[in-house]
Amino acid sequence: MKSKLAVVKIGGNVIENKEELSGFLNLFAQMESPKILVHGGGKKATQILKKMGITPKMEGGRRITDAESLEVVTMVYGGLANKTIVAKLQAQACNAIGLSGADADAIRAHKRPVKEIDYGFAGDIDIVNTEAIANLLHSGFVPVFCALTHNGKGQLLNTNADTIASEIAIGMGHSYETTLYYCFEKRGVLSDMTDDNSVIETIDYKNYMELREKGIISQGMLPKLENCFHALQKNVHKVCIGAISMIDSEPGLYTTLTL
Amino acid sequence: MKSKLAVVKIGGNVIENKEELSGFLNLFAQMESPKILVHGGGKKATQILKKMGITPKMEGGRRITDAESLEVVTMVYGGLANKTIVAKLQAQACNAIGLSGADADAIRAHKRPVKEIDYGFAGDIDIVNTEAIANLLHSGFVPVFCALTHNGKGQLLNTNADTIASEIAIGMGHSYETTLYYCFEKRGVLSDMTDDNSVIETIDYKNYMELREKGIISQGMLPKLENCFHALQKNVHKVCIGAISMIDSEPGLYTTLTL
Repeated sequence: MKSKLAVVKIGGNVIENKEELSGFLNLFAQMESPKILVHGGGKKATQILKKMGITPKMEGGRRITDAESLEVVTMVYGGLANKTIVAKLQAQACNAIGLSGADADAIRAHKRPVKEIDYGFAGDIDIVNTEAIANLLHSGFVPVFCALTHNGKGQLLNTNADTIASEIAIGMGHSYETTLYYCFEKRGVLSDMTDDNSVIETIDYKNYMELREKGIISQGMLPKLENCFHALQKNVHKVCIGAISMIDSEPGLYTTLTL
Repeated sequence: MKSKLAVVKIGGNVIENKEELSGFLNLFAQMESPKILVHGGGKKATQILKKMGITPKMEGGRRITDAESLEVVTMVYGGLANKTIVAKLQAQACNAIGLSGADADAIRAHKRPVKEIDYGFAGDIDIVNTEAIANLLHSGFVPVFCALTHNGKGQLLNTNADTIASEIAIGMGHSYETTLYYCFEKRGVLSDMTDDNSVIETIDYKNYMELREKGIISQGMLPKLENCFHALQKNVHKVCIGAISMIDSEPGLYTTLTL
């Protein structure tokens, strides 16, 4: 039997709120090991860019990462956010080790090819180094990944944290029974966007297609759910979507996705 | 017999010069393992502080790290400098893993007590987690440390990179025959400050006291050399001081310190 592994992704909004972050890290520290945390960077990068007199460039909700912006996201994601989280986890006796995809050659990516839009130094993942990650887990470390990868030729790349989480979960799925947790601002996938209590408990792929057809699942959720079903189709045991409290909650208080 | 371990420290001036950094990392990647790199942050933190409209505060060559400055050094040391170096080493097939003292609980420190000067979030080292570092070395990783530690209670602390290097070398000295390399802008300790070729090949403690007495060793070098002899007195096998090229050079082209 495979041993269990939790891969938990938190968004920038959790990181920006000190109390919410502390609350989450408390829960995460208490989760059974092995476990992996993946975090986004959030608005802090945009704030720092602005403070430095650089205009943040976005396209369809995604950052255009020119050379200046890459420096700033490397600072904010890999430095400020990652080290702050690691220090707070260590204070909870959780033996965290902060990583970008360059560290331990953990995640290789390539610069997204220029089609209609040039996303700059944005990375699309090629391969997750599951051996290196398993090595760290076996040593009792709790890897904490920021949203940076590298191309193996010395270039860091800004990479979507949702994708990093699902690709890690997929890669580790070969040797672990992996559950992927997406923490976000809602309590789960809602059947009524205006009612926070309308959490859909479980969704399988057939339901998903129906909900999508009926327009119940909103535009913003579509890429997130596509990502989740992609992971389920590739070795991930279970995907859970909900508020940060879900990692300590009974099923039903968040949305569980299965094939 | 103990196996050999190299602990190499580079300063901010090397990091700021792209070509010099590449040259150094090339040499470092070729060095025999196990090895550890420790880097300062240099002027980039000061540049970013200024860009963000924050006035850098210094006192006797040391940074006064208030809360705002700590955010910036965490970004620059732990993010930009550390991840840039790690990505470049990975490109040379050197399996680098970037660490602050918080990662893997590698280096604990306490906030420097306020006496005449309040250095803010500056850390004085309490203990190096030699077991965690040995664990990473055994796994084939090359630890790359930035100049940040933590207090074990969630607080990151800005810590002198020279001291980090010597404390790591001292801690690892119990199980390794450790050589500590301090790379800086000169080719070694000079008998004539105006002549770059006047490198003193070897200095033992008796020589050191004499050179100091005669005023041949200049003020800036004193704390550096004190640090070196402190390391030698505590289990470090050898300390070398010189330009980055020394890690690939014959003895005599840099200064070697022994007891």
